Amino acid sequence: MTDVGADAPPARDVTVVEVGPRDGLQNEARAIGPAEKIEFIERLLAAGVSALELTSFVRADRIPQLADAAEVAAHFPHRAGVRLIALTPNEKGLDAALQAGINEVAIFAAASDEFSRRNINQSVAASLEMFRPVAERALDAALHVRGYVSTVLGCPYQGRVPLRDVVALTESMFALGCAEVSLGDTIGVGTPGTVRALIAAVSGSCDVRRLAFHGHDTYGTGLANAFAAYEQGIRTFDTSAGGLGGCPYAGPAVRGNLATEDLVYAFEGSGIRTGIDLDQVVAASMWVAQHLGHPPYSAAALALAR
Amino acid sequence: MTDVGADAPPARDVTVVEVGPRDGLQNEARAIGPAEKIEFIERLLAAGVSALELTSFVRADRIPQLADAAEVAAHFPHRAGVRLIALTPNEKGLDAALQAGINEVAIFAAASDEFSRRNINQSVAASLEMFRPVAERALDAALHVRGYVSTVLGCPYQGRVPLRDVVALTESMFALGCAEVSLGDTIGVGTPGTVRALIAAVSGSCDVRRLAFHGHDTYGTGLANAFAAYEQGIRTFDTSAGGLGGCPYAGPAVRGNLATEDLVYAFEGSGIRTGIDLDQVVAASMWVAQHLGHPPYSAAALALAR
Repeated sequence: MTDVGADAPPARDVTVVEVGPRDGLQNEARAIGPAEKIEFIERLLAAGVSALELTSFVRADRIPQLADAAEVAAHFPHRAGVRLIALTPNEKGLDAALQAGINEVAIFAAASDEFSRRNINQSVAASLEMFRPVAERALDAALHVRGYVSTVLGCPYQGRVPLRDVVALTESMFALGCAEVSLGDTIGVGTPGTVRALIAAVSGSCDVRRLAFHGHDTYGTGLANAFAAYEQGIRTFDTSAGGLGGCPYAGPAVRGNLATEDLVYAFEGSGIRTGIDLDQVVAASMWVAQHLGHPPYSAAALALAR
Repeated sequence: MTDVGADAPPARDVTVVEVGPRDGLQNEARAIGPAEKIEFIERLLAAGVSALELTSFVRADRIPQLADAAEVAAHFPHRAGVRLIALTPNEKGLDAALQAGINEVAIFAAASDEFSRRNINQSVAASLEMFRPVAERALDAALHVRGYVSTVLGCPYQGRVPLRDVVALTESMFALGCAEVSLGDTIGVGTPGTVRALIAAVSGSCDVRRLAFHGHDTYGTGLANAFAAYEQGIRTFDTSAGGLGGCPYAGPAVRGNLATEDLVYAFEGSGIRTGIDLDQVVAASMWVAQHLGHPPYSAAALALAR
């Protein structure tokens, strides 16, 4: 295994948080085994990825695709300069993460109350109370805590989500001790105009350098939205190699997470350094696509891998 | 047939030049008949499209998909407020266009000499001399002339294309009498950064209000590039319903022209009025997709039509 800390890290202007191994694989119809996941993650790290969602410590009967969380996490000890993040929805998940030696955990809430009730059977306020001890104990153990705020630009159930709800929830996540909060356009309805308004609103009370943008490409706006967020000061972007996961609220041919390689192609081509090697991330996407049985949801991968 | 001139035209901030019926269908493997083309065009006009590439008057043995140019053109007499454009590569094509009652013709040249030689077996300079009498006679007949400059951000044969070559050719097209010149990223390699540099360079000597941007989505940058062009002052965009045509320089799954509905979704959602009804253009794309036998290359169409 290459020690990526041995050399100076590549210079970069933005941080890409690769969510394919967790968010992506969790939403794929076909599960792949821990050996394939580990190789996929190794390939992504070798491509220069410096922040990555490793897995989620959840009940295996709820999300069977991630039943191997402990095994995958145990394979990746601490690496200098690399953030390996695990989602911990509750204290039991945190216990498992601590046992696996994870050094960054994530908690997640929805800006839409209706989404929260349908997704985790709790109101937004109740979910915050559930996360409070998780965050406290994680901070006591000197872990970093990342927060996710989903449905920031629209909800599949309630439709419009008021910006003030997003702002209030983001403030609450920082108040719980999150070092960074990622704003997720869960159903991909955002446009450059609404993304700009979102970031402007949230950065009114929160430090924009501690915000991330998690965009989707459902309507083709993923990359345009990422540039709009960049212009508003965002420097951390959640993307998924090969656009893994698709859109769980739509059909099998509908795109979900913005593909990492699409962002790398466009940002690097615009002089914005990502620290990620385009050809290597495309190769990783094509490799995992073979195991999943469908082509990547990525224009750059399809154009470059032909 | 609805007379779109009967009501006040919808307010719009940008003009979309719909290129699906010509550029799109010309690059599809399967040809559709004139009755289907006419219905497709009617559907696009009903959706609010105010500028449209109707066909190209070329040799039927060279482009069999457009062998019905005269029949299609004859079906669409002059309509107030609607630009119906036909490509005329030479004087013979112009004769046919004049006979069909066309009131806007287009001529096209490549910024890359190598592309020009391989595509039309002529140098760029020679192609300009060929277009000179076409443009002169069209202007004498009181037609509008539109110019296309292709390979503005890269060439499949020579690779990099110097910006000064694009600037010089665009100036030449205006000197021939073009009312508008469309800058085409033929192989879709552009990024927001390179698009910005392109428009800045060309608008240094040409009026940006008379420039159009014709972007492709090959690497997923189509929409981000369109926004970059908009920010540089571009207000006319060439797009193709359903992303028709794919990328003739790549494979069958690789995207080409930016899809009209993707642009309409993102622009309208950002408060930039296109005058086009999103649902109606999606319906037109889904309708023609059935006749072509493959789904549209459009995220918005796939997300909305499910």
